[in-house]
Amino acid sequence: MSKRNIYMDHSATTPVREEVVEAMLPFYRELYGNPSSVHALGRTVRRAVEEAREKTALALGAEPTEIYFTAGGTESNNITLRGAAKKRGKPGHIITSSIEHHAVLDVCSELAAEGHRVTFLPVDHYGRVNVNQLQAAITPDTFMFSIMAANNEIGTLQPLAEIGEVAREHQILFHTDAVQLVGQLPIDLKSLNVDFLSLSAHKFNGPKGIGALYMRKGAKVTPLYCGGGQERKLRPGTENVPGIVGLSLALELAVAEIEEKRKRLEALRTKMIKGLLAISETILNGHPEERLPNNVNVSFKHIEGEAILLGLDLEGIAASSGSACSSGSLDPSHVLSAIGLDHPTAHGSIRFSLGRGNTKEDVDYLLQVVPRVVDKLRRISPTYHA
Amino acid sequence: MSKRNIYMDHSATTPVREEVVEAMLPFYRELYGNPSSVHALGRTVRRAVEEAREKTALALGAEPTEIYFTAGGTESNNITLRGAAKKRGKPGHIITSSIEHHAVLDVCSELAAEGHRVTFLPVDHYGRVNVNQLQAAITPDTFMFSIMAANNEIGTLQPLAEIGEVAREHQILFHTDAVQLVGQLPIDLKSLNVDFLSLSAHKFNGPKGIGALYMRKGAKVTPLYCGGGQERKLRPGTENVPGIVGLSLALELAVAEIEEKRKRLEALRTKMIKGLLAISETILNGHPEERLPNNVNVSFKHIEGEAILLGLDLEGIAASSGSACSSGSLDPSHVLSAIGLDHPTAHGSIRFSLGRGNTKEDVDYLLQVVPRVVDKLRRISPTYHA
Repeated sequence: MSKRNIYMDHSATTPVREEVVEAMLPFYRELYGNPSSVHALGRTVRRAVEEAREKTALALGAEPTEIYFTAGGTESNNITLRGAAKKRGKPGHIITSSIEHHAVLDVCSELAAEGHRVTFLPVDHYGRVNVNQLQAAITPDTFMFSIMAANNEIGTLQPLAEIGEVAREHQILFHTDAVQLVGQLPIDLKSLNVDFLSLSAHKFNGPKGIGALYMRKGAKVTPLYCGGGQERKLRPGTENVPGIVGLSLALELAVAEIEEKRKRLEALRTKMIKGLLAISETILNGHPEERLPNNVNVSFKHIEGEAILLGLDLEGIAASSGSACSSGSLDPSHVLSAIGLDHPTAHGSIRFSLGRGNTKEDVDYLLQVVPRVVDKLRRISPTYHA
Repeated sequence: MSKRNIYMDHSATTPVREEVVEAMLPFYRELYGNPSSVHALGRTVRRAVEEAREKTALALGAEPTEIYFTAGGTESNNITLRGAAKKRGKPGHIITSSIEHHAVLDVCSELAAEGHRVTFLPVDHYGRVNVNQLQAAITPDTFMFSIMAANNEIGTLQPLAEIGEVAREHQILFHTDAVQLVGQLPIDLKSLNVDFLSLSAHKFNGPKGIGALYMRKGAKVTPLYCGGGQERKLRPGTENVPGIVGLSLALELAVAEIEEKRKRLEALRTKMIKGLLAISETILNGHPEERLPNNVNVSFKHIEGEAILLGLDLEGIAASSGSACSSGSLDPSHVLSAIGLDHPTAHGSIRFSLGRGNTKEDVDYLLQVVPRVVDKLRRISPTYHA
């Protein structure tokens, strides 16, 4: 089999769909007005922004007034957590999980340093939060749950519906970082007791630099930035109009194709997992079923993830160890540590994340290359004895 | 003269240059990698981001490590002012002017509410800050000056070099919101004692949703958001790569053409001002010489700016009353109030802001249309008696 170029790092970012690029282009060129301008050009662009908001809301089962455009998932997470703490105005208690993305985890740590109390819930060895433990952690001053919808490294899904019921019952705000879930699995905010949801366009074949925050009607935070009335003062600054248009179309298209894509990627994922686990001393990380359709995370014992990545890169395969956001760090992934992996095993972990462009042929090629790369590295590993 | 479509609202936003759009496109399509990914695609994109940083630095007379990409001018202003206050950790004193953009003014007001002391310096009737007054306002706990480079409504330039000298002498940080200046007039940060400078790409024919903050080596602020190591932790979140590439090219092109553009626009501006002041009871706002080459701001007495705008809009002319950011508000512009205009006069003000695409023919058309629109509105004005 000849060398192929295979991108299996869709959880880091995705290519923008051509339809989305084409939809954005007019807003760089002829429709360049500022949506706050009162002249005809400004009003035309304002309409496009509001249509994008309606489209985004529809895809999530939300109302247009519940959608706020931001610069991305990190900003949405920061606005929610810091904004809710600022709104509260006095120390309180937040419950999150130990496997959140750093854009939640680090904000929670900072809020703890500022006087709030934070419970970082442990997870089981599949990476699932225990709803009973969550319930037991509630105190009278608990004002926020922040539990991710799907983990960015191991793909494990959290029981959002159950968590939402607990939140509603105790009148606690519930934020979910759904950056990895949106566009992969259906989400209906009408049926979930979620108050805040963060998403990022570049994870579902939209552009980088644009995200959204869903904030349920009635939920309130104090804005972090000020300077203009945009996004109802929650996120001031001239709107990223091409980005907003791109996000909304990418989301609409992803949601329209979501079942078909899920089935296709799940089949590829199952085949990949089966093939990779045939390599000796290889384990699957994350839940076998309750996981993102596009996520495969495996640990190859006795070897280093970075070396595997380089070996795969030379063979044309783009994958990831840990998340892209913490790559370059030598610490083992906090997620893999939290599910109980020892450091050497965590260090030998690779995340393959599938996307629209991947085919059966990609998986066949990958399953031919990976065992060879792993074998080569293990031959020079001091701890491996075949 | 037949009807033309004339955009004279370049201070609100500008069309993206075609070269810039073309330079961005590959980063939506084939070069879509995450710059934090270690594989070949990620590394290629990382190089593009760092090349853009070098290009941006070069255009400003800065070092690449002094450039941080943000989502825009509003974010750059918030990061600087709130970040410096957070870094300080105790109440202090900030000196700003009364005619700053709301993204500075409102942040200062919030900091004042949080315990800082803020001096809002008055300006003269041209909109200039008095450097002696600035110096006199300094107290032992003054830690920051925030004085804009050029006003967004009336185009008045501030004496940045002199203000920088005072700042350096007293070891006070100096931030300038240069959103309107960058791309219009040359700026050399090596020769100015500026510690922080905010800029926004969409003001100089770059894309919306991307800006930069220049932070002098040695100057420090505490980041407002956390969650990843991007932009050396000052502004975490996956980089808006197409935006960064677009910003840097738009800036490089703007700076390369800056003298030619300045001369051309100044000639058009002079002709416009002369023609508009020929209309009775019309005054020029801002400084006659020390102003942006592309700014014309005039008050037509006895009529409402919004009515003029609508009249111009029907004739194909896009202009602005006040800034786009505060349009829709019924309060008179804080800038026009600060330069001493009474409310009725302030309400009759229009900003025409020139840009790359404008021609002598545009100005001829404008000078034919405006007197007609003004005359029509004055005929129905209760206070006008010809």
